[in-house]
Amino acid sequence: MKILPLEPLTAEAFAPFGDVIRADAGARSWLINQGSTVRYHDLAKIDTESEGGRTLLNIFRGQPHKPPLQLRMLERHPLGSQAFIPLSTRPYLVVVAPPGPLDEALIRAFLVTDGSGVNYARGCWHHPLLALQDVSDFLVIDRGGPGHNLEEQSLQHPLWLETPGH
Amino acid sequence: MKILPLEPLTAEAFAPFGDVIRADAGARSWLINQGSTVRYHDLAKIDTESEGGRTLLNIFRGQPHKPPLQLRMLERHPLGSQAFIPLSTRPYLVVVAPPGPLDEALIRAFLVTDGSGVNYARGCWHHPLLALQDVSDFLVIDRGGPGHNLEEQSLQHPLWLETPGH
Repeated sequence: MKILPLEPLTAEAFAPFGDVIRADAGARSWLINQGSTVRYHDLAKIDTESEGGRTLLNIFRGQPHKPPLQLRMLERHPLGSQAFIPLSTRPYLVVVAPPGPLDEALIRAFLVTDGSGVNYARGCWHHPLLALQDVSDFLVIDRGGPGHNLEEQSLQHPLWLETPGH
Repeated sequence: MKILPLEPLTAEAFAPFGDVIRADAGARSWLINQGSTVRYHDLAKIDTESEGGRTLLNIFRGQPHKPPLQLRMLERHPLGSQAFIPLSTRPYLVVVAPPGPLDEALIRAFLVTDGSGVNYARGCWHHPLLALQDVSDFLVIDRGGPGHNLEEQSLQHPLWLETPGH
């Protein structure tokens, strides 16, 4: 039984899969509004306009998942990016694999504990939302428009995730 | 001395200015992820693609403003919408006036206390971020690209805002 370890979410570790969305992740920033506000600029590549698409803003309300968790499938959106930004600081899990034909040996898992968001690049394999502890709302920015923008794939070798905090 | 009253933020009251972003504002919603998640769909008109524009995702970190507050100016973005979603549940103020030539008699103010976001429609006059109580982060979705997308206008008759909680 393979157990996937949980990694901390860093911009470097997540770069093959998309963007980490947090204020202090090295983005350009500057003062606006007569010095009362810092703008952390352009934190994610919002890639929603292909084939007549447009940007959607949604809220996902996720039931909490109780560890230990077994992964049985991943999904991807071939036509656009999808960003998740938690509207709380409750922890959640991010499970990804690189774009292209799914290689189960390359699946990685991240535990997010600081309220950071993630933006899955177009075509990046990822697990559906894995909220922890309590019902949690996430702002989700993805693509609407024509075309089939969801592929799901069952894992040939289901994986267990390391239990957070253990 | 004119004092502008603070209104509660409802979708109906805010409709002339843009969208209220909250899960229960009457949006279409449905279950996804095998029933573990509710998708509240397409909560704001993200209008960022005019004249070669694209969608930007940013974080604004606002210093708190201490009431009583005097309004001296408003601004607007003629080329795109701008959405603010608080990443905390601290209260903040929203001050707006309808698109078109600025009519100071039509300025309205809303106090947001429940973590809701707002999306200013393209060209809607609004005051820069007015966080309250403590430094507060907001996710901001606006337009990047060519063209001049900021107009500021001083008020001929500066206004005071009602003090929250009084």
